[in-house]
Amino acid sequence: METKYSVFVCESCTLSFSTTAGTDVIDITRPVAEKVAESGIAEGQALVFTPGSTAALTTIEYESGVVRDLIEAIERIAPKDMDYRHDARWGDGNGYAHVRSALLGPSLTVPITNGRLALGTWQQIVLIDFDNRPRKRQVVVQVSGLKSR
Amino acid sequence: METKYSVFVCESCTLSFSTTAGTDVIDITRPVAEKVAESGIAEGQALVFTPGSTAALTTIEYESGVVRDLIEAIERIAPKDMDYRHDARWGDGNGYAHVRSALLGPSLTVPITNGRLALGTWQQIVLIDFDNRPRKRQVVVQVSGLKSR
Amino acid sequence: METKYSVFVCESCTLSFSTTAGTDVIDITRPVAEKVAESGIAEGQALVFTPGSTAALTTIEYESGVVRDLIEAIERIAPKDMDYRHDARWGDGNGYAHVRSALLGPSLTVPITNGRLALGTWQQIVLIDFDNRPRKRQVVVQVSGLKSR
Repeated sequence: METKYSVFVCESCTLSFSTTAGTDVIDITRPVAEKVAESGIAEGQALVFTPGSTAALTTIEYESGVVRDLIEAIERIAPKDMDYRHDARWGDGNGYAHVRSALLGPSLTVPITNGRLALGTWQQIVLIDFDNRPRKRQVVVQVSGLKSR
Repeated sequence: METKYSVFVCESCTLSFSTTAGTDVIDITRPVAEKVAESGIAEGQALVFTPGSTAALTTIEYESGVVRDLIEAIERIAPKDMDYRHDARWGDGNGYAHVRSALLGPSLTVPITNGRLALGTWQQIVLIDFDNRPRKRQVVVQVSGLKSR
Repeated sequence: METKYSVFVCESCTLSFSTTAGTDVIDITRPVAEKVAESGIAEGQALVFTPGSTAALTTIEYESGVVRDLIEAIERIAPKDMDYRHDARWGDGNGYAHVRSALLGPSLTVPITNGRLALGTWQQIVLIDFDNRPRKRQVVVQVSGLKSR
């Protein structure tokens, strides 16, 4: 007789994305969904995190119009061409990027239900890199939860 | 002799809320707290997530004054009556709702300690629906953590 | 022969911080990192949560310039010297603090990988207290995940 039981798993990996200067919004849903599928987790969560202080994570309908609208809203909140104390002290010109990142936040958690990310049909996970130079940007993806055995 | 031990549980359900057109702020604390109580989890977390790109989750003291203040602050950040590229392309008139949702975020995690949500006394979990038409809005509630046996 | 296996642990504690009136930004990375180290968790997450409706959590490079820049950006979004309905009703003068807290959010989750918080080098966890009077502010830190035995 076979015994079916659930085990808790928790696994992390680091994804890497090449970004351009200026506010770059990248759809990272597919690689995150692949990690979920590989893990075999039926019920749990995907935690996505950017280890850095000039990027952020959120979800959006990834079509170029609304992505542009989001960038413009962020530009109104923390304009690039303002005087920032950070720049006066450190001269790296990305004070605006630090402020934007702190406002939007570095962390996103999406439930996994029935083995899949519980995203809406028109909802994608995006990495937003605000920095003023091209970066090799790291994103930590941690999947955790119950897997049937 | 009885043996007392803890097991990890992770359970999801989907709550459904009828929302009105315009920015609708709904206190969903009670149904979330009920799921926590039903789960029997002593130590863990409640992850609340809206699968959609025109709504968001946060916490607030749920009294009509500050709820109105929040709506007005959001209106300053991403005004309803602006030109959005999303609307120019797709004509559904809810570009502002997409931008607001991306800024506030679709996900909220609240710790469960001693079998209860670790909310402050004057702190409620709210679903904010920004869409420009009444919706039947889904919210995924996932409770996970340790349960005594 | 020794058997090596992993167990799931989930532990909470409450940290306490004395804050000043006005927007006070406090670096709480060290006490959170200490809880992670004490837990022995190799792979998991640290959930940081403020039970209250006039504070928020995020990450930032904790240097005085950019901290000041963030405070000024928040002041543009929800100015202190505006009329808030909350204040008209309740007279406690901290309507702005409630709005800011709802916009930034009370919750932050940071992955634990290889036994450590997966923060960037220049990325600190900060508690932001917006309230208009000094507070004894509580922060719930919950660490969960797998520990080798």
